[in-house]
Amino acid sequence: MHLPAAKVSGYVALMIVQIVFLVLFWLFVRYHKGAMPMAIGGDGDGKKESEPLGEGGISKYPQFQDVQVMIFVGFAFLMTFLRKYGYSATGFTLFLASLVVQWSILMKGFLHLEGGKIMLSLESLIDADIAAAVPLISMGALLGRTTPIQLLFMALVEIALFAANEFVALNVLKITDTGGSITVHAFGAYFGLAVAFILRPSKDQNEAGKHEGPTYTSDLFAMIGSLFLWIYWPSFNSVLAQDTGSERAILNTFLSLAAATVSAFVVSAIVSHENKLDMVHVQNSTLAGGVAVGTVCNFLIGAHGAVLIGIIAGTVSVLGYRYLTPWLTANLRLHDTCGVHNLHGMPALISAIASIIYASQATIEGSYEAEIWKVFPAWDNSLADNEHQAGIQAVHQLYGIGMTLLIAIGGGILMGAILKYTSFRNLQKDEHHLDEYFWEVPEEKKDE
Amino acid sequence: MHLPAAKVSGYVALMIVQIVFLVLFWLFVRYHKGAMPMAIGGDGDGKKESEPLGEGGISKYPQFQDVQVMIFVGFAFLMTFLRKYGYSATGFTLFLASLVVQWSILMKGFLHLEGGKIMLSLESLIDADIAAAVPLISMGALLGRTTPIQLLFMALVEIALFAANEFVALNVLKITDTGGSITVHAFGAYFGLAVAFILRPSKDQNEAGKHEGPTYTSDLFAMIGSLFLWIYWPSFNSVLAQDTGSERAILNTFLSLAAATVSAFVVSAIVSHENKLDMVHVQNSTLAGGVAVGTVCNFLIGAHGAVLIGIIAGTVSVLGYRYLTPWLTANLRLHDTCGVHNLHGMPALISAIASIIYASQATIEGSYEAEIWKVFPAWDNSLADNEHQAGIQAVHQLYGIGMTLLIAIGGGILMGAILKYTSFRNLQKDEHHLDEYFWEVPEEKKDE
Amino acid sequence: MHLPAAKVSGYVALMIVQIVFLVLFWLFVRYHKGAMPMAIGGDGDGKKESEPLGEGGISKYPQFQDVQVMIFVGFAFLMTFLRKYGYSATGFTLFLASLVVQWSILMKGFLHLEGGKIMLSLESLIDADIAAAVPLISMGALLGRTTPIQLLFMALVEIALFAANEFVALNVLKITDTGGSITVHAFGAYFGLAVAFILRPSKDQNEAGKHEGPTYTSDLFAMIGSLFLWIYWPSFNSVLAQDTGSERAILNTFLSLAAATVSAFVVSAIVSHENKLDMVHVQNSTLAGGVAVGTVCNFLIGAHGAVLIGIIAGTVSVLGYRYLTPWLTANLRLHDTCGVHNLHGMPALISAIASIIYASQATIEGSYEAEIWKVFPAWDNSLADNEHQAGIQAVHQLYGIGMTLLIAIGGGILMGAILKYTSFRNLQKDEHHLDEYFWEVPEEKKDE
Repeated sequence: MHLPAAKVSGYVALMIVQIVFLVLFWLFVRYHKGAMPMAIGGDGDGKKESEPLGEGGISKYPQFQDVQVMIFVGFAFLMTFLRKYGYSATGFTLFLASLVVQWSILMKGFLHLEGGKIMLSLESLIDADIAAAVPLISMGALLGRTTPIQLLFMALVEIALFAANEFVALNVLKITDTGGSITVHAFGAYFGLAVAFILRPSKDQNEAGKHEGPTYTSDLFAMIGSLFLWIYWPSFNSVLAQDTGSERAILNTFLSLAAATVSAFVVSAIVSHENKLDMVHVQNSTLAGGVAVGTVCNFLIGAHGAVLIGIIAGTVSVLGYRYLTPWLTANLRLHDTCGVHNLHGMPALISAIASIIYASQATIEGSYEAEIWKVFPAWDNSLADNEHQAGIQAVHQLYGIGMTLLIAIGGGILMGAILKYTSFRNLQKDEHHLDEYFWEVPEEKKDE
Repeated sequence: MHLPAAKVSGYVALMIVQIVFLVLFWLFVRYHKGAMPMAIGGDGDGKKESEPLGEGGISKYPQFQDVQVMIFVGFAFLMTFLRKYGYSATGFTLFLASLVVQWSILMKGFLHLEGGKIMLSLESLIDADIAAAVPLISMGALLGRTTPIQLLFMALVEIALFAANEFVALNVLKITDTGGSITVHAFGAYFGLAVAFILRPSKDQNEAGKHEGPTYTSDLFAMIGSLFLWIYWPSFNSVLAQDTGSERAILNTFLSLAAATVSAFVVSAIVSHENKLDMVHVQNSTLAGGVAVGTVCNFLIGAHGAVLIGIIAGTVSVLGYRYLTPWLTANLRLHDTCGVHNLHGMPALISAIASIIYASQATIEGSYEAEIWKVFPAWDNSLADNEHQAGIQAVHQLYGIGMTLLIAIGGGILMGAILKYTSFRNLQKDEHHLDEYFWEVPEEKKDE
Repeated sequence: MHLPAAKVSGYVALMIVQIVFLVLFWLFVRYHKGAMPMAIGGDGDGKKESEPLGEGGISKYPQFQDVQVMIFVGFAFLMTFLRKYGYSATGFTLFLASLVVQWSILMKGFLHLEGGKIMLSLESLIDADIAAAVPLISMGALLGRTTPIQLLFMALVEIALFAANEFVALNVLKITDTGGSITVHAFGAYFGLAVAFILRPSKDQNEAGKHEGPTYTSDLFAMIGSLFLWIYWPSFNSVLAQDTGSERAILNTFLSLAAATVSAFVVSAIVSHENKLDMVHVQNSTLAGGVAVGTVCNFLIGAHGAVLIGIIAGTVSVLGYRYLTPWLTANLRLHDTCGVHNLHGMPALISAIASIIYASQATIEGSYEAEIWKVFPAWDNSLADNEHQAGIQAVHQLYGIGMTLLIAIGGGILMGAILKYTSFRNLQKDEHHLDEYFWEVPEEKKDE
């Protein structure tokens, strides 16, 4: 109980990081034009229309707020299922996300400088929130097995790698990935799993942590996270969609989630012990539909396409929890506390595969029409040679997921090695999944 | 503890239902025109304005998301008040709603085919979420006394009856019911109560279930549901309102809820044991104002009209919980776990009565003006003979609630008989209100 | 346990208040023009565009709903951290807010009558929700040490004082206070602290209440409140901003919160016992960034300005919890259950000081341009003599916070005296922080 406390030096280093951010914001960040007052005389009286949500710069504000709930309540509470790790689940999510959103504005800004400055807008915040999802997914794989200092250091490096990979995928390879299944979910999941693999326990310590299970109450807290993620997932997938793709992203995501949920419940009952439903599946696999439809959410996949993807994702995810994760733990000593491989990893692969298939079939006439270049950025402007261009986009999707896996797994292995072999304190087995090493925890009273 | 598990066959049947849905989506459902790319050349460069929330098809998206929270978090957590039924409350709500939204898109779509196809749009999802409220209300009456298979079977049939009743009420009887108090709340409540009546226990088993009470913690979880329902109720009532009726729906619903809340607290303190407040009243009767103002929320009832309706609803609802529900249980053996009669049933009747009164007084000049035909669909286009038309609308409202009660109660009785006398497994008294028959529940550790 | 119950007379008085509100609504409140149907013939067919959220009267609806979540879920759950006071935290928040929003519509309406009537619109509801924050902040200082009747009586008087102070500050002194740090946060905090000072215990009863601590579970419930407040704070600060100031308010508030959060975590770890993080700091000090940036949120403070304010606020807030609050309790017997001085009081002073500094530096050319009169209402219309006008605004800001403190503290002392020396029942020390005196609380079962 009274082991040496977390080193202060790590926290001091984070304060220095915050102050460095302050300086970088001062040197490089400026409000974008739309958030600056209009020059007097510009349009007579300098008055702009006063419709805060109906136009221009901040028309995506409601969707942004939905994504905020997903990051700060969704991820936070989804990870409260552990019986003695709820302070860390909610607190470290808040800490990590608050650090990372600032870093992400800077990192992504440096990749898109205008006149040597980073232009700050609501879009920057949306991008930052989406970026924050990446290390939070990785955190799920490692939940309870790192110190907060390790976690935050990992997040800072991971964001830089993520931003670089995403930049290349979107701007060089010109892949399409509206819901971020490739660049966000696959990256975060496999990066985290690679770190977990390097930090794997020795053979004699491969059993589950003694505090790793849920309580009845902690499982209900986790449902808060799960349900808010479910509800707002259509916003996550649609917030960066363009034109009529926005509505398709909403429709497809909703249907995929609904079908994944039904499938996850049914498969959970069929494969579980005594045919009882398992809360782990309900909290997580129901969401696999949102991940699996992500990359293709703005495609013309049709309602049936969305439902089919949902059925596959919900089923694969539950089977992953039931059979694959225990196998990985037993054979590779790969621990994955939240099962991010089943919620984010495999469903993201499904999404990538779906994007390859659908992209290879895309046509202009009678289907994508004038939106073809927005949905499929690898297409060039010639209207001829459709089939060839569809093939190029499909191949680029394949390259995109390939590169993402490579960078995520390579980066994760490197990061794991840094966390393990440098001067970071590593938790011992019996310190796992316990708030009390990092938090003041109230003593339990006899009368309660 | 180790009784025979839920039959797998029920779950397999539900998977078949999901696959049938897939086929029906494939055969019949298409994106509506607004979610399809515009043909090249249509307006020069085929570009549409890119304002995802400011125009056209998805301008109601924020209100839709509010309704999503009500269905998936509001209903789910409101029903977590039972001490050992929180997994089922949240999980079955998610399961049921995910199944039912798909079914509702199909059912309502078949009633409004265009060229043999169902046009899928954000409106479809809004309608589907509202429809999902119906079996969730019924579930409240039965909470803890059915198997999930019974519940989901009931929901599928109930949605079909609901869609038919709503279609006739709105399109044939031309009633006005913007907030759905008649077609949604009254239908769901009385259908559920009718099922509960058929499934009533034998005389020697009429006492409350031994696991029926709350714990301190479960009551706080229930407050999550209650408060989100409270907050977003103005969105539920206004999402289908038209023109200036949208803002009136918001204003009236907000005021009615506030007045109902104050009244419910006061009456709860006055009628309760030792004048102590009762969490059941606080969780539920505060919301009665939202139901009671539903049908008239877009009428010109004035702020005082909204407050008056709220006062009546909050008061009636608490009195119902305190006196009527125990009487019904004792005398009719009608168990109503969540007291949906007090939260949905009676307040919906109040709303129907209010709509009859207000509709009979409606005039064009100086009040409803050009919106008269939108607020009161039974009015014809002649500007003369106001009084006569107002009378017709009032009578149609009466027919509407009458038909709804008839179909809900009749359908509920039939459904109850099917659940009771066919091959569905029925729960025994000591299996009531317990998650552990359907869920893996963590064992309680000594050290907690 | 079985002391005399709360007097019924208080509840009856509240019912009378509700009925008086009903009469006042009937006599004075009318829908504003935008919520009234357009006269036939007005524009041909009397049809308006049907874009519920994209235009005119209710374009701020999504931000309003965010504020609703802050008031009814945010404040409610933030105060559930006490182990035996969760029913009161959530329930009394709901009761108080429902009473106060009605009263606020009336009070603020009487200060802005049009033709002898109060015009009801979505703006009225937004103002009412913001006003509700004021007594809820005061409630935080007193949490667990008053009866509900004392609390609600206090709230009714406080709203009247708040409305008067705000009216003078905004319309006579013409201060700028978009996020309400001066008129809402400083007022609510110092009013509540003044009441708490008058109600301070005798010297021999100055120790902490025996039920004053949290449990593991109650701390997680409090995180629900904290996180939703964090997420939606940009909406609170921006909902009343104008023109391009809306987006700046969002950007600045987000960055200030993020920086305050990182700083609060770091400082918490550094100053706490054994360098462990303290949930009180995490739940509260992370939000100080939202308060501290409130008054200047729509200024041209730059991203670095927002981050700097956040760092200062997070740091000061944690130091306040760690050192100042215990000192005030020990030396002045000033108890502050939720530490509102650290979350609302001091950060609001920081915001006021920031507004003085920034206002004194404001210029037209190249910066505020045509928005200068909207951001700084004390400026007159002459374009010359910038420096002088900037000085006037700065001085007015100083007067504004000075007057607010004076009225809040004076009013709080008076209110404390009324609560203490008139016929209100005062709680005894051992009745503090306990739901069971006002609520039916379930008995704990042996098997749980």
